[in-house]
Amino acid sequence: MPVGSIPFPNLPTIAGIKLGTVGAGIKRANRDDMLVIEIAEGGSCAGVFTKNDFAAAPVQLCKRHLALTNNQCRYLLINSGNANACTGEGGIEDALTLCTAIAKEKGATVEQVLPFSTGVIGERLPLTKMQNALPTALANLNADNWAKAARAIMTTDTVPKGATRQFTCEGKTITVNGIAKGAGMIKPNMATLLAYVATDAPVNRDVLDALLKEAADSSFNRAVIDGDTSTNDSYVLMASSAADITPITDLKSESYRQLRETVLEVSMELAQNIIRDGEGATKFVTINVEAGKSQAECAAVAYAVAQSPLVKTAFFASDPNWGRIVAAIGYAGVESLDTSKISIYLGDVLIVEGGQRAASYREEAGQAVMNEGDITVRIILNRGNVSHWLWTSDLSHDYVKINAEYRT
Amino acid sequence: MPVGSIPFPNLPTIAGIKLGTVGAGIKRANRDDMLVIEIAEGGSCAGVFTKNDFAAAPVQLCKRHLALTNNQCRYLLINSGNANACTGEGGIEDALTLCTAIAKEKGATVEQVLPFSTGVIGERLPLTKMQNALPTALANLNADNWAKAARAIMTTDTVPKGATRQFTCEGKTITVNGIAKGAGMIKPNMATLLAYVATDAPVNRDVLDALLKEAADSSFNRAVIDGDTSTNDSYVLMASSAADITPITDLKSESYRQLRETVLEVSMELAQNIIRDGEGATKFVTINVEAGKSQAECAAVAYAVAQSPLVKTAFFASDPNWGRIVAAIGYAGVESLDTSKISIYLGDVLIVEGGQRAASYREEAGQAVMNEGDITVRIILNRGNVSHWLWTSDLSHDYVKINAEYRT
Repeated sequence: MPVGSIPFPNLPTIAGIKLGTVGAGIKRANRDDMLVIEIAEGGSCAGVFTKNDFAAAPVQLCKRHLALTNNQCRYLLINSGNANACTGEGGIEDALTLCTAIAKEKGATVEQVLPFSTGVIGERLPLTKMQNALPTALANLNADNWAKAARAIMTTDTVPKGATRQFTCEGKTITVNGIAKGAGMIKPNMATLLAYVATDAPVNRDVLDALLKEAADSSFNRAVIDGDTSTNDSYVLMASSAADITPITDLKSESYRQLRETVLEVSMELAQNIIRDGEGATKFVTINVEAGKSQAECAAVAYAVAQSPLVKTAFFASDPNWGRIVAAIGYAGVESLDTSKISIYLGDVLIVEGGQRAASYREEAGQAVMNEGDITVRIILNRGNVSHWLWTSDLSHDYVKINAEYRT
Repeated sequence: MPVGSIPFPNLPTIAGIKLGTVGAGIKRANRDDMLVIEIAEGGSCAGVFTKNDFAAAPVQLCKRHLALTNNQCRYLLINSGNANACTGEGGIEDALTLCTAIAKEKGATVEQVLPFSTGVIGERLPLTKMQNALPTALANLNADNWAKAARAIMTTDTVPKGATRQFTCEGKTITVNGIAKGAGMIKPNMATLLAYVATDAPVNRDVLDALLKEAADSSFNRAVIDGDTSTNDSYVLMASSAADITPITDLKSESYRQLRETVLEVSMELAQNIIRDGEGATKFVTINVEAGKSQAECAAVAYAVAQSPLVKTAFFASDPNWGRIVAAIGYAGVESLDTSKISIYLGDVLIVEGGQRAASYREEAGQAVMNEGDITVRIILNRGNVSHWLWTSDLSHDYVKINAEYRT
C-alpha cells in the first residue's frame, strides 16, 4: 500500500510517440515485461544514467548510442525481470542482439536503439524468449499504450506510475507525459528507477539535454528510499517534435519556460510517487536542511537523516524521537558544526532550539505531526544561507519482508 | 536471540578495581541501572569517545576531566536508561552534580570522576532518583561485582557482555576484564557502545593511551550494525597498577606485548559480542576488502556493503544475492574503479570473478555459506595491496520491531 493514493492519470496520446508491450515471460508469466517506445523521425531524446561503477550493459550501450547518434535515437527497448547487470561482454552482446532485431525490423541503425533493463543482477537475459516476443511488441506499437507501458516496466512497485500535464503555446496544446518505476534501491544518481518523459514539442538537442539535467536534479535525484544506488537507473526525456510550433532553441524563451515548468512538474510527480510507493513505505518524508554554509554540507545532513535506519524506524513507528534526528545530524560530517545553533521543526512544531529540546515543545504536538502520512522535517543550521532538500520514506517491517523475500 | 551463543564468562576480581551497582528506577523499576567503578589510588585510565557533533554532556565532561587530571581519574559513574544528550548546560550541571556527590563522599576531586550515560536522547536525567540511589552504589563497591556491572549498563542488549583473559608476567598473574553494552546505533567512531576494560597491570599513562587507541581501532571501530553513530559512545581502559610487576612503560617491552595482545583479545571479543547481539541480528558477517589502493577506499567499500539495507536484508534471508553486494561496491565512490578486475568470495566460494558471475559458481554453494550464522565476504579489488575489514550484522524484522517500539 503506497503512502496516500497514487492515482494513475488518463495519459493522452502524444503525436510522434508510440508504445508497444508484450509478455515475454522473463521472470513471471502472464504479465507484460517488455516495452518498445518509438519516437517519430525528426525527434530526439536525452538520457541521464546511474553513476554506479557496475553500470549495467544496457546503461553502457545507452550512453554509447546517444553519443554516436547525437541524441537522435528512435527506439527504446525496456524489459523488467532481469537487469542484465554484471553480465560482462555477454550481456553487452545480448542487448545488442535485441537492438539489432529492432533496427532491422524498422529500418533504423543499431545505434538508434536504446536498451534498458531492470530486475535481478547477475543473470543473462533470456534472449530467445525476448527475441520471440519482440515482433509482438513492435506490432503493438500504438500512441494509446501509455498505461500498458507503465505496467510493463514495474518490478516490486505496487502501482503503475504516470503523470501528465499540458500547456498552450502559439495556440497549440503541448503535452508532456511520463511513466516511471521505482520501489527499492532508491538513491540519487540515481535509483533503481526507470523514468521516461515525452513531449510532442520540437526541442533543440542542447536544450533538451539541459532541461533533462535540471529536471533530474529537482526530482529523481532528490528521492532516497534506502540509500542503495542501482546499476541500471535511467531517466530519458524524449521530444517527438511533432507539434507544429516554433522549435524551442533558446533557454530564455517563453516557450522554454513553459516546457521547463511542465517537465519539472511531471518529473517531480513521478519521483514523489516512487517514494510514496517505496518498498514498505508508510510515510512520505521531506527533509529540508536550511541556512547551511554550502549545498554539500546541507546535502550531507539531509542524507544522514534520510538514510539513518533509526530515524526511518522512528518514522515508521510515528514516534517523535527527535534524538535520532539530532544524532544523525551529528555524524553527518559537517565541519566545525556548532550544534548549539541548530533548530529543528517537525511540521510546524519547533522541537529543537539552540541544540536542545525547545522549551515550548510538547510531545503531543510532535506526535500529532508524526501521525500524518506526509511529514516535513526542517533542520536549520544557522550558519549560512544555502539549503537542500530530499524526499524519503520510512523503514518498515514490510521493507525487510519485501527485500528478504525478493528473488527467493 | 544473539547470533551463536554469548556465554558470560566468570570474571575474576582485579586487584584495585571495585564495582557497585544500584537500581535507581531511571527508566524501569526492578533492575540495576547505575554503576560506579572505583580505581585504586595510583591507577590511571584512558578513554576514546564518539565523534558525533552532538556528543552528550557526559562525553564532554569525560574529555575535560581526563585532560585536567592527566588520566588520573578514580571513579566512573555509568547509568543506563537516559543518555543525557542534547540537554544543554542543564545536562552538564546534572552530570557534574552527580560527580560532585561521589567526589565528596570519597574524598576525590570532581575532575577525578567520569560520568557516562546511555539511553534516550533529549531528556534530563532524573537527578533526585539518581542522587538518592548513589550512596547504595558506593556502599556496594566490591571487587566481585563484574557480572552485576555488565547487567546494569544494558539497554536493548539481550544478554550481558563480558570477556576476560590472563597472562603471566614476572611470575605474577595479570588479569584483563572487560564489560560492554551495545545493541543499536552501532558504527565506528563509535557506536552506542559503552565498554570498560580494566587490568591490574601497572601501565604508564602514555602507553595506556596508545594501547587504548590501537585496541579501539581493531575492535569497536570495526563494528557496524546500522551505521548510526551515537552521541554517547565511550570506551575506557583502566589500569589499577595493583599488580606487583615492573611498570609497563615501553611499547617494545615483552610485558607490553603480552598486555597488548590480551587487551586486544578482550576488546575484540566484546566488539564481536556486540555485533552478535545487535538489534535483531541473526547473522555475524565479516567484510574483508582486499588488494585496494588505500585503506580509505577499502574502508569505503566495506562500509558501503556493510550498511546497504539491501545487502543486509539478503543476509537476513540467507539469500546469496551477490548482485546487491556488487551494486554496493559500485556506489562506494572508489576512484577509477575497474570493475572487471573484481573478485568476490562468499566464505570459500568464488561467486564473482572479473566483475561478473564466476563460471564455476553454483547457487547451491553460495546458499550453503549463506545458511550459516557466521559469514565472511571477501572482496578483492585487485588494484593495490591494502586491505580493511569490518564486522556487521543483517537487517531483520526484529531490527525494525525493536527500533519502532523502543521508547514508546
